Amino acid sequence: MTSYRAPVTDMRFTIEHVVGLDTIADIPRFAHIDDDLLSGVLDEAGRFTSEVVAPLAKVGDTVGSVRNPDGSVTTPPGYRQAYAKWTEAGWPAAGFPEEIGGGGLPWMSAMAIQEMMKSSDLGFSLCPMLTYGTVDMLVQHGSDEQRATYLEKLVTGAWSGTMLLTEAGAGSDVGALVTKAIPAPDGTYRIKGTKIFITWGEHDLTENIVHVVLARTPDAPPGTKGISCFIVPKFLVNPDGSVGERNDITCLSIEEKIGIHSSPTCVLSFGENGDGAVGYLIGEASHGMKYMFTMMNEARLSVGIEGLALAERSYQQAAQYAKDRIQGRRIGSPSHDPVAIIAHPDVRRMLMTMRCNIEAMRGLLYRTAAAIDVSRSHGDAAVREENESLAAILTPICKAWASDLGVTLTSLGIQIHGGSGYVEETGAAQWWRDARIAPIYEGTNGIQAMDLAMRRLPMEGGAAMQRLLQMIQVDASSLDGDLKPIGDRLNAALEATAEVAMTFGAWLMGGRYDDVLAGATPFLKMIGDTLGGWMLARGARAAAEGPVGYDTAFLADRIASAAFYAEHVLTTVPGLKATCLAGHEGMYAIDASRLG
Amino acid sequence: MTSYRAPVTDMRFTIEHVVGLDTIADIPRFAHIDDDLLSGVLDEAGRFTSEVVAPLAKVGDTVGSVRNPDGSVTTPPGYRQAYAKWTEAGWPAAGFPEEIGGGGLPWMSAMAIQEMMKSSDLGFSLCPMLTYGTVDMLVQHGSDEQRATYLEKLVTGAWSGTMLLTEAGAGSDVGALVTKAIPAPDGTYRIKGTKIFITWGEHDLTENIVHVVLARTPDAPPGTKGISCFIVPKFLVNPDGSVGERNDITCLSIEEKIGIHSSPTCVLSFGENGDGAVGYLIGEASHGMKYMFTMMNEARLSVGIEGLALAERSYQQAAQYAKDRIQGRRIGSPSHDPVAIIAHPDVRRMLMTMRCNIEAMRGLLYRTAAAIDVSRSHGDAAVREENESLAAILTPICKAWASDLGVTLTSLGIQIHGGSGYVEETGAAQWWRDARIAPIYEGTNGIQAMDLAMRRLPMEGGAAMQRLLQMIQVDASSLDGDLKPIGDRLNAALEATAEVAMTFGAWLMGGRYDDVLAGATPFLKMIGDTLGGWMLARGARAAAEGPVGYDTAFLADRIASAAFYAEHVLTTVPGLKATCLAGHEGMYAIDASRLG
Repeated sequence: MTSYRAPVTDMRFTIEHVVGLDTIADIPRFAHIDDDLLSGVLDEAGRFTSEVVAPLAKVGDTVGSVRNPDGSVTTPPGYRQAYAKWTEAGWPAAGFPEEIGGGGLPWMSAMAIQEMMKSSDLGFSLCPMLTYGTVDMLVQHGSDEQRATYLEKLVTGAWSGTMLLTEAGAGSDVGALVTKAIPAPDGTYRIKGTKIFITWGEHDLTENIVHVVLARTPDAPPGTKGISCFIVPKFLVNPDGSVGERNDITCLSIEEKIGIHSSPTCVLSFGENGDGAVGYLIGEASHGMKYMFTMMNEARLSVGIEGLALAERSYQQAAQYAKDRIQGRRIGSPSHDPVAIIAHPDVRRMLMTMRCNIEAMRGLLYRTAAAIDVSRSHGDAAVREENESLAAILTPICKAWASDLGVTLTSLGIQIHGGSGYVEETGAAQWWRDARIAPIYEGTNGIQAMDLAMRRLPMEGGAAMQRLLQMIQVDASSLDGDLKPIGDRLNAALEATAEVAMTFGAWLMGGRYDDVLAGATPFLKMIGDTLGGWMLARGARAAAEGPVGYDTAFLADRIASAAFYAEHVLTTVPGLKATCLAGHEGMYAIDASRLG
Repeated sequence: MTSYRAPVTDMRFTIEHVVGLDTIADIPRFAHIDDDLLSGVLDEAGRFTSEVVAPLAKVGDTVGSVRNPDGSVTTPPGYRQAYAKWTEAGWPAAGFPEEIGGGGLPWMSAMAIQEMMKSSDLGFSLCPMLTYGTVDMLVQHGSDEQRATYLEKLVTGAWSGTMLLTEAGAGSDVGALVTKAIPAPDGTYRIKGTKIFITWGEHDLTENIVHVVLARTPDAPPGTKGISCFIVPKFLVNPDGSVGERNDITCLSIEEKIGIHSSPTCVLSFGENGDGAVGYLIGEASHGMKYMFTMMNEARLSVGIEGLALAERSYQQAAQYAKDRIQGRRIGSPSHDPVAIIAHPDVRRMLMTMRCNIEAMRGLLYRTAAAIDVSRSHGDAAVREENESLAAILTPICKAWASDLGVTLTSLGIQIHGGSGYVEETGAAQWWRDARIAPIYEGTNGIQAMDLAMRRLPMEGGAAMQRLLQMIQVDASSLDGDLKPIGDRLNAALEATAEVAMTFGAWLMGGRYDDVLAGATPFLKMIGDTLGGWMLARGARAAAEGPVGYDTAFLADRIASAAFYAEHVLTTVPGLKATCLAGHEGMYAIDASRLG
């Protein structure tokens, strides 16, 4: 079993100096957040996740969650106990506002706790993560009665939440869904249909499960405009808040997947035994897609965190192996004695690649969470709006860029182990197999790239993107002295990225959608790598100033990591410009019938 | 179950026009090779592998090979029958010279048959592949008696062969091995020790297994210079050639791996029950490492083929899914009807990325096999030597570049499937899991990069590399008219690659080994992508000439594929120059103790 140690110092540095506590300084509700409080919370969460959750990952992978003949699902040994400890310690509530019983932490730092959970055991972490989405949905769109019924149970983790969009014929195209919601005389609805790929759709960790289900009322228009959102609890709730009658929801099967074996991915049928499961409309009918986007944006950021979290876990294990494993002499050394493989240049290259990308991801993901914090809680409406746009641009990048990196970096983690990495017992493979889901769910990375290029780039007539690029330029140009080469490389990457952004903007105005779509994925990679470099540059600048509370080696390492990223990642960014701007014609030059 | 259709037309085109049949035209033993013969062989092999082998992949993955309590290993259902058909039809011998009972095909076209086998079922294919290595070892270094005893059985596939290098303390550093070979009075040896990661080390497909084992005689010097090579058969062979007494070899366990579940990866112990297993010295004592390099070079090319083969299988499955799966409207189209996802730009981008890289790999791998053919059989010693150098340079590139691409491209194959790709039942995941071994075994890709930069680049004082780069330049500069943009992009990639090669050469002269080692992996990627572009450019030029025997759509598609590769892959090559030339200091700036 491999251990996990939460990278608390780097998380704290990222929040305080890469993102910067000043980002949320104007917000009264976060006035109490300082280094002491952060250190305390992160240390405690780090202890909890390392000691209670991380040891479950192996049994989660090898035993997994199992569906029983009666349709119930049994989680792996130890999961119930760990979940109980998680809720008893009050962790589920940490990132929610105090007025709904939460811990009042900014989302930016709640991200760090999410990261720890996901590093410890991704499969396990998905249960609370989906609950966060359900809470947000109810806070923003639920009725007073719905909030009174469900919110406390969800915030405390006593009940879990889910998100039911996908059907066999409706994946990326959510608007194609056909699940029906028939109004009943008492104002409730009867939900009938089958949903697939439902994460933690059925399990034994909580007393009740609150499903948020997308469905169509009888008179709804076709497509996304006719989708409504319903609460469909596993057990109906009695007037006194206790759990009552079983709703007509059946778990037909769970999928056998590449990874995240502990997370039951369910096929759920509604209304197998009668007129339909009882559902309660959220907000207005046919507004469901809009509401769901709130949940999806947050979930997308969390999926980005998965790429980061698994890369971190894989990095820790690979670095430990590289220190322990003695193999081969150091080329060029007078000694012929074998050395620990961490001394070999190519192993060092892989570890440094993992490390600098991890720091880059941590910076960008926490930065995006901070934009969400400001967009929700700042006193000035203009500031709120600017940050809402910023979060809107950054979210698809966080999701796709970080989840792709998660697969790439965990693969390096296997590679460092040599032959042992291919053997499951070593445990290095699990992070890679688990990581492979993140580029797929919550909107494939291709969908994210399309979203970025077609919807987010042209926001405010391109002004929102322009503001972001200017923020990067200001920071890049501020780097001088020893840090100037980092700033220069960041500026070069930025320039190429900005040129593509500007060209895409012009193409969109001219209706050249196909050309933009053809370049959307490499553009997302370009801007992701550039934003990562931005975060590392900010970290290097802050480290050079020698802030208190960090030892000098840590600060020097942050600078070294930024320099490595500049030399090995930022330098490759301009090379993507041509592929972004190649247009769509070459992509369609071979007829579809002759592909494959 | 997904089907496989051997891409016979593209294989034929690659052999005849990308590599070019003229490459082997001067060699009398291959004088009979023409389009008719090639078509016949490839069609027949394609039918056999598609119908007999490809349907086994699923059971191979889900059931796998199993070790029984008595130490024997049972292969998955259907494997024994398929292996018997494979040998009965004479396929194992196809690529061997006629004088040892082979089919006399050039290695270049035997590669196509290997590709088909590996696309059909990688785990299965490894058994014959290791046998090829054993045959080569005996042909080149075995005594007359050893050849008489083993060769026919191995060439016909009646017996299988293996290759035993790795021990727990000797992986990448083969020289660290400790297995002992004690001389017996009768001239044989007693082998004692434990070998790990032995592919097809024990199984039930053949009557006997011929192990080629690396071990040390009592007076051997330390390191690689003291390694000898032994034949250690599972069953001793009676004077009449029949199988006799069981040798003292025990399969202690088989590994549970990420993929290739049908290929038993064994821990083999020699001499568990006595003085040691009976072994026969190959060639001279302490020359084993040199002999083994012959086997390893061929095996490395075959591992490159694995990247190609799995990418091809994944591509066929993904393209079929993309044609069948209806989802989402086509953006920009007046129609709101959903379309097959192959119509969406990002899906098209993924499929085209798979396709052009597959064609590039096929070109380079077959080209390398042709260099081996010429190096062995050409009448002119100078031509043989030039081609030996060429094959020496290309082999580590083929192994690492193609095996890394195998992982990347099979991951795209999963991505095209969306959520279904993450579900094992779909079958898209197997190609990715299987592909993950190729960057690791037969020398990790880091070892290949080191080998390329430190040993192959400076061959003949750099002249061999120079010749290769000039061959590319001549072809790149010959592209004109519509093909000129492809040639220009190839030249730009070549220029950057050549600059790095020249700088590395100078650094090696100056003893700057660490700087070369630090850039070795990105250099291998640069030159691999450039060589791939070279092969596609040659293919485009040949296609433009309209050779007979190919329909016009096929030829137009080859040009489209080359153009796509030029725009999307070759354009990124110059961006790797800076990372190649960054030197080693940044890589060691963080102390090893603070990594992880």
